[in-house]
Amino acid sequence: MATAAELNARIVEQGNVVRKLKADKAAAEDIQKEVLSLKELKDALAKITGAPSDAKGKKAAKFTLKTAKGTKDWHPSDMYLRQRIFRKITDIFELHGAVTIDTPVFELKEILSGKYGEDSKLIYDLQDQGGELCSLRYDLTVPFARFLAMNGSQYPNIKRYHIAKVYRRDQPAMSKGRMREFYQCDFDIAGVYDPMLPDAECLSLTCEILEALEIGDFTIKLNHRKILDGLFAVCGVPEDKIRTISSAVDKLDKLPWADVRKEMTEEKGLDGEVADRIGEYVKLKGGPELVDQLKQDARLTANKSAVEGLDDMALLYKYLDIYGCVNRISFDLSLARGLDYYTGVIYEAVTEASAPPAPVAPSPEAVPTPAQKKADVKGKKPALNADEDAELDESTVGVGSVAAGGRYDELVGMFSGEKGAAGKIPCVGISFGVERLFSLLLKKAQEQGDQAGRAKATEVYVMSLGDGLLEERMKVAKELWSAGIKAEFMYKAKPKLPKQFEVIDKERIPYAVQVSPGELAKGTIRVKPQVGKEQGAGNDVEMKREELVPWLLEKLGRK
Amino acid sequence: MATAAELNARIVEQGNVVRKLKADKAAAEDIQKEVLSLKELKDALAKITGAPSDAKGKKAAKFTLKTAKGTKDWHPSDMYLRQRIFRKITDIFELHGAVTIDTPVFELKEILSGKYGEDSKLIYDLQDQGGELCSLRYDLTVPFARFLAMNGSQYPNIKRYHIAKVYRRDQPAMSKGRMREFYQCDFDIAGVYDPMLPDAECLSLTCEILEALEIGDFTIKLNHRKILDGLFAVCGVPEDKIRTISSAVDKLDKLPWADVRKEMTEEKGLDGEVADRIGEYVKLKGGPELVDQLKQDARLTANKSAVEGLDDMALLYKYLDIYGCVNRISFDLSLARGLDYYTGVIYEAVTEASAPPAPVAPSPEAVPTPAQKKADVKGKKPALNADEDAELDESTVGVGSVAAGGRYDELVGMFSGEKGAAGKIPCVGISFGVERLFSLLLKKAQEQGDQAGRAKATEVYVMSLGDGLLEERMKVAKELWSAGIKAEFMYKAKPKLPKQFEVIDKERIPYAVQVSPGELAKGTIRVKPQVGKEQGAGNDVEMKREELVPWLLEKLGRK
Repeated sequence: MATAAELNARIVEQGNVVRKLKADKAAAEDIQKEVLSLKELKDALAKITGAPSDAKGKKAAKFTLKTAKGTKDWHPSDMYLRQRIFRKITDIFELHGAVTIDTPVFELKEILSGKYGEDSKLIYDLQDQGGELCSLRYDLTVPFARFLAMNGSQYPNIKRYHIAKVYRRDQPAMSKGRMREFYQCDFDIAGVYDPMLPDAECLSLTCEILEALEIGDFTIKLNHRKILDGLFAVCGVPEDKIRTISSAVDKLDKLPWADVRKEMTEEKGLDGEVADRIGEYVKLKGGPELVDQLKQDARLTANKSAVEGLDDMALLYKYLDIYGCVNRISFDLSLARGLDYYTGVIYEAVTEASAPPAPVAPSPEAVPTPAQKKADVKGKKPALNADEDAELDESTVGVGSVAAGGRYDELVGMFSGEKGAAGKIPCVGISFGVERLFSLLLKKAQEQGDQAGRAKATEVYVMSLGDGLLEERMKVAKELWSAGIKAEFMYKAKPKLPKQFEVIDKERIPYAVQVSPGELAKGTIRVKPQVGKEQGAGNDVEMKREELVPWLLEKLGRK
Repeated sequence: MATAAELNARIVEQGNVVRKLKADKAAAEDIQKEVLSLKELKDALAKITGAPSDAKGKKAAKFTLKTAKGTKDWHPSDMYLRQRIFRKITDIFELHGAVTIDTPVFELKEILSGKYGEDSKLIYDLQDQGGELCSLRYDLTVPFARFLAMNGSQYPNIKRYHIAKVYRRDQPAMSKGRMREFYQCDFDIAGVYDPMLPDAECLSLTCEILEALEIGDFTIKLNHRKILDGLFAVCGVPEDKIRTISSAVDKLDKLPWADVRKEMTEEKGLDGEVADRIGEYVKLKGGPELVDQLKQDARLTANKSAVEGLDDMALLYKYLDIYGCVNRISFDLSLARGLDYYTGVIYEAVTEASAPPAPVAPSPEAVPTPAQKKADVKGKKPALNADEDAELDESTVGVGSVAAGGRYDELVGMFSGEKGAAGKIPCVGISFGVERLFSLLLKKAQEQGDQAGRAKATEVYVMSLGDGLLEERMKVAKELWSAGIKAEFMYKAKPKLPKQFEVIDKERIPYAVQVSPGELAKGTIRVKPQVGKEQGAGNDVEMKREELVPWLLEKLGRK
């Protein structure tokens, strides 16, 4: 039975549901249904506390028992999955020789200010309690750039990853899973190297990770800022419109060309013919043969920037071929990515599971989606943040990409405060949408049913078949722990048999080690495999006491 | 050569050194030395920037490039060690079937308020930017209690660990390594079980972890609040003085008995004879035989609380014997622990390396140490926080214990807002001083020299013995990554041989795989073991190209 505190927490939640429905102008009957549930909860609370069910439901609680808005607790079964995901990802980072750093959760306010454009209003500040003014980190890119600016001469070349929480005072569309505290997972290679080698490794590593996570089929869209810039120039886009037109192109994965063209011409004042020339290019997608094709395009190759980009792409494809991941890559001239600071290749991984719904033309009355709103903001003033465009908002689940990144050769220079080569540390990186990957993999686990809800990987349950035998169970458990075998037993002097089996079933523990008075006297012990093909009444194995640990280690594949 | 930004960072640091020396009234010549270093840094900066070296060193920098006061970056080699420590600890938590949870880095302000006594002033608040008032978490205990109060019926029994950063606006004695952001590592068993079983497991697990970390010899001091309460009662301490006298006893590891007696009688108004009776008891230390001895003590056994405590201890010792860790435990009647909320066993692990210096009587003029100041605050008003007493300040390095904890059966009830059994979730736990353990193990690694400074565990460096052979190196690296072998190569088309060996030596990479034109033609490849007994000029192995991966896997023990 729920406690008063739990009821209070549920009342708060249910109140939010009701308010949300009202705000969304939901059907009256839907609202009424949820109001009734709220009433029931309040009545249940009143029964426990003896207090009358009041309108706010507050009298009974000493304080509101909840987490702050936009944050949540991670429960054990979520953590179990999250840790397995992080472990798989970091194992691959480390295969590639990456190191990790950790930076403080808050930075001096002035380090963050001026880095995120209009989104600076979403930064959490710490209260001025005397001393320095600080803010919670908004992403991991700016702290990394700050770290490099401070320690660049110690790390002229660094391949680093960082998995950590970041903070944004977004008005969360909570029903969409948009959070104010969420994880980012960044991998970056900083330093001067021969061309395209780090870029190719970022892409190969992304394939390795997405394959290891078994998220299903995926494609990495690839483009190059210099090709885009050249393309816009030869199509006749005025220099000062290149960014805003690029940002319009970036919406082609969510909007049909007609809408994007309209934005270019009507909103942004681009000549219709120029837009049409762009339209011819940005519909192009393909593999290395597209690079060759564009290299034959006399108009494009008249532009120096485009030629540089195409040379990069040709070299990159050569390396991707060696890494065996060309088939995952789609050279896609419509990929633009929202951010100003990219200077070379850009890429974005999409999966079937994470792909956005087919583009629809919004009617004038339609409420823009958060992604659209975001894109609009970006269109006005692109922000300085790798993860802030709609494609890689870690906190929005079910739309967009699972990883994205690119080359940004100028960002660190902004922090080191120096112009020219001295302050310049070229970087290329990839950011994995770990919150989204978590949601995809949780859904998959729930559909498959076999892992969902599991919170740990206990291998052996030490149970008694009679008379408690607590001390014997403790001895066995200690022996198993010493041998590195994950083991538990019931903290009862005389546990009941069904209760013990209940734990085994619930936790799906693969082996039950059974101690019984008869076998104890004989110096033997019994193992009952609980899960998998060995399961079944007739599969108990009786063995000498001293054979237990070696037997289990062999069964568990650790010999 | 250092950049202007780096020089600025060093100038800020050096400025702090100088200010600290001045504040500490250090010898003039020591101050002068550091002032000169500061001057040199400023001159170096002036050379780069062309700006005159000004008093504050600020003009040249666009902003101060540093982390916030009391926080720091963790560099790659520190992270490498930190991750290995955390992995060893969590592996053992998981052996015991523990799950983990994660809570937000900030909580509603009202959740934290009123939980930490006078130390509430050290809580970081977030700025009121509209919406809820929030604070950064101060420890992991209160968020866990809040989690249990919200989700208790889902987790009536839970064995959980949590490793995460906490935040305290302490005036940091930075030179002592006292930080405002630091890690805590808590393991707790919550729920109703048969007596002393979870308590024994906490102690066994603590031994297992400290042994696995190889921190050298250690002792776990053990006592029981009910015994202490009984002891104070039979000695004649008035009910209302028990807490404050207990807090005086707790200083016996840092102060001689005479000083503690003085505090009891002069400061706290205890009768001298009562103090002397206490003195007879608190000098007792021993093993299970001390439990038997006290059970013969007619004065003590007249007290119900003492008898309950002694019965617990007898049962606990029986279980500790089964777990084979009695020899690590010292039943020590002088251990009191600072916190109000303990209700049963209390314990604290000390190592030779972490033991405090021998107690000295401070002269009246002596400046109190932070630990003493803390103890004084506690003496006045004990705070509601497992880790806040001087013995387990995670942020103070070089003094005190490496782990501490105890049983606290009433804390969760404070959050669930319910009296009696419904809101009561008994808990027992242990908190590891991971920052201190890190410092101890870093020092050890530096002394041994073999691991210090290493930031990753790359196993193979793929190098070219001639003509670059970039593509061949990439192919080999990809093959190794696919086989789960940690591999790197130089991101250069034509790397120089000495440069490649430099990396191998610096990173202490155990195997160099060498490709050369001649062997490529023959279809062979060469491996040169770089570290360990196989090292040496004559130990190169030439093998068929396809034998490389199996050969390496066998050498790396992964067959």
